Amino acid sequence: MAELSRRRLLSAGAVVLGGTGLAWGAREVTLDQGPQAAPPAPTEPEVEPFYGAHQAGIATAPQAHSTFVALDLRPEVDRAALIRLLKVWTEDAARLTEGRAALADTEPDLATEPTRLTVTVGFGPGVFRAGNVEHLRPAWLRPLPPFAVDRLEDRWSGGDLLLQVGAEDPVTVAHALRVLLKGAAGFGTVRWTQRGFRRARGTQAPGTTMRNLFGQVDGTANPSPGTADFSDLVWDTGAGQAWMAGGTSVVIRRTHLDLDEWDKVDRPGREQSVGRRLSDGAPLTGDSEHDEPDFAAVGASGFPVIPEFSHIARARSADPRQRIHRRGYNYDEAPASGEISDSGLIFVCYQADVDAQFVPIQQRLSELDMLNQWTTPIGSAVFAIPPGCAKGGYIGQQLLGS
Amino acid sequence: MAELSRRRLLSAGAVVLGGTGLAWGAREVTLDQGPQAAPPAPTEPEVEPFYGAHQAGIATAPQAHSTFVALDLRPEVDRAALIRLLKVWTEDAARLTEGRAALADTEPDLATEPTRLTVTVGFGPGVFRAGNVEHLRPAWLRPLPPFAVDRLEDRWSGGDLLLQVGAEDPVTVAHALRVLLKGAAGFGTVRWTQRGFRRARGTQAPGTTMRNLFGQVDGTANPSPGTADFSDLVWDTGAGQAWMAGGTSVVIRRTHLDLDEWDKVDRPGREQSVGRRLSDGAPLTGDSEHDEPDFAAVGASGFPVIPEFSHIARARSADPRQRIHRRGYNYDEAPASGEISDSGLIFVCYQADVDAQFVPIQQRLSELDMLNQWTTPIGSAVFAIPPGCAKGGYIGQQLLGS
Repeated sequence: MAELSRRRLLSAGAVVLGGTGLAWGAREVTLDQGPQAAPPAPTEPEVEPFYGAHQAGIATAPQAHSTFVALDLRPEVDRAALIRLLKVWTEDAARLTEGRAALADTEPDLATEPTRLTVTVGFGPGVFRAGNVEHLRPAWLRPLPPFAVDRLEDRWSGGDLLLQVGAEDPVTVAHALRVLLKGAAGFGTVRWTQRGFRRARGTQAPGTTMRNLFGQVDGTANPSPGTADFSDLVWDTGAGQAWMAGGTSVVIRRTHLDLDEWDKVDRPGREQSVGRRLSDGAPLTGDSEHDEPDFAAVGASGFPVIPEFSHIARARSADPRQRIHRRGYNYDEAPASGEISDSGLIFVCYQADVDAQFVPIQQRLSELDMLNQWTTPIGSAVFAIPPGCAKGGYIGQQLLGS
Repeated sequence: MAELSRRRLLSAGAVVLGGTGLAWGAREVTLDQGPQAAPPAPTEPEVEPFYGAHQAGIATAPQAHSTFVALDLRPEVDRAALIRLLKVWTEDAARLTEGRAALADTEPDLATEPTRLTVTVGFGPGVFRAGNVEHLRPAWLRPLPPFAVDRLEDRWSGGDLLLQVGAEDPVTVAHALRVLLKGAAGFGTVRWTQRGFRRARGTQAPGTTMRNLFGQVDGTANPSPGTADFSDLVWDTGAGQAWMAGGTSVVIRRTHLDLDEWDKVDRPGREQSVGRRLSDGAPLTGDSEHDEPDFAAVGASGFPVIPEFSHIARARSADPRQRIHRRGYNYDEAPASGEISDSGLIFVCYQADVDAQFVPIQQRLSELDMLNQWTTPIGSAVFAIPPGCAKGGYIGQQLLGS
């Protein structure tokens, strides 16, 4: 550029040099500036409500894309800092989910299509330490007990804070995530990121159970959002920790699928290992997906029609409390050298009490489940999901106060 | 499992042990077996034609998701092996794009929703070496000349074969890609994988130009598929290499966007560096996106309204032949330690002649383009895209014969 005159460079470049310098650390001072330009109002934006008794993204019908990010808090973060961060996240999430640019949004034009955006915030044990509220930690909020099937990697496990960002549109997810992580830059660093997907919006009828990359219909036995059964299983009553009323817990287990070995299993073998038909997810004793499995039915040979070691037989408990709400996502990353694919399931489930609901199921499955031959948990994390908030409040206020 | 009787294990596990053992290496012998079960016919599948004078995925309206995979050929691959691989890919791609399971598809239930699936195959220089057809290599098929802005990494550059797999649905992309890469396992290994996305199907009106993660409307100046202008710019006439008639070339440049520094630039600065309005992509001298930029217009200060160093001013040539068809995708990967995001653009363009069309544009931009301050090419690859084929033929037949 030596041949260019200084004047010409300035005429074109002054605007660059004169940028507003919105540094991440300066986030607090820019909160009242508003977006740099008002984007045009979208027509009929697809909006999931942000405010409410519960956080969105749990009872919400799963969007096509969801990214889960765990953060480690910086050592200097205290209760006041946590409150600042959570107020920023609440304000930004509320705006973005409505299709409005976040405060100080540097790409407001990417905010106009929320496509059912939800932002869900979770607290790991570190939040209770940093906030000096250890006595308010739910009893179940700790690493899961070790399971024999686990091959956990640190890079997919643990974390102090969770951001779960879901939308039908991957550009919306990318934009919302960056806005929220910029807001958190002074408070924490990204520990892990897991990007998940399901069928795109419009590919299948709403309410269709997803298929994982094994080809299985996955999630049939879920309770139905909106029912009393769902509420009982998922939402915390506040009996343990009063502030958690309306909250829940999430377990996120990154589960690698060994597709190369799974390829060697024929279709009947796959159906017996799951206990359901591959074509439509019906139990092997039934005609359609939501038929109740008959674990007592025996075939001509005298053996159970649904094998005792099949996934659905082992997952099932006689105790109706031992149920969870699954809302998992597929993952598919670039394969390692010499491999064909790196695929799996971001297993995600919500329950009022991890110890009473998830752990006994997982213990049974870890002891014996034909699917264990092809599935390996490589990451594990548990977070408390605080209740929702009303306008003017912020996520976590019930725990941290104002 | 020591306490379990052998008999019980067998009753449940025999189906597993008796799997069909479809090994990748055994691909050829399984070609005539058909899928393991016929999936139900989809209702009104979204199908892009596979057969034709040109390969799909180029003039095709961009799908929401596209993954680009480069493979290195195994040293023992010769012309006969290349033909075997390309016949398998052709057959599998033709079936999958119609919503039918691939031959020997181990997850046929994932094949029923093509969602505008396209599979595009490209040839790097290695194909011509392996096929002993060096004399048929297009003159422009070689690594691009070095550009001053390049910071190329080997892990995103080069490759002997390209698979470009696009669809509206990410599950469809994952399934098709695995099928095709299994078919290639005996022939090559994955060199790099780049997963890209745009707005989801249905988020915006068809034909809307995409926004990149800088928030810019990106791709306005493209020729329109179906026009003579598009054909002239994109499709090879066969004048150089007769077998390439109806083919084209693709340049794939992974371009990192420095969003952290871009954040410091205000809205007018961003608009001047591109030469277009952020809100709607209109040139700074125009009213709507597709208005012709007026590079001669000067403002009150006497300086050009569209700065001479802006991206669109530098990209533009007086030579109408110096144009390309861009069809890029956003990428957004898990950030490195301490970072907020790892985002960018999989810059993808098609042109009949790389040397005559792409290289002079890129040379101008490399010398001077205000956007260079925030964009860094970190990967580069060039492939010849052979013409399409008719039913009964295979992709590459014009080069390799039968």
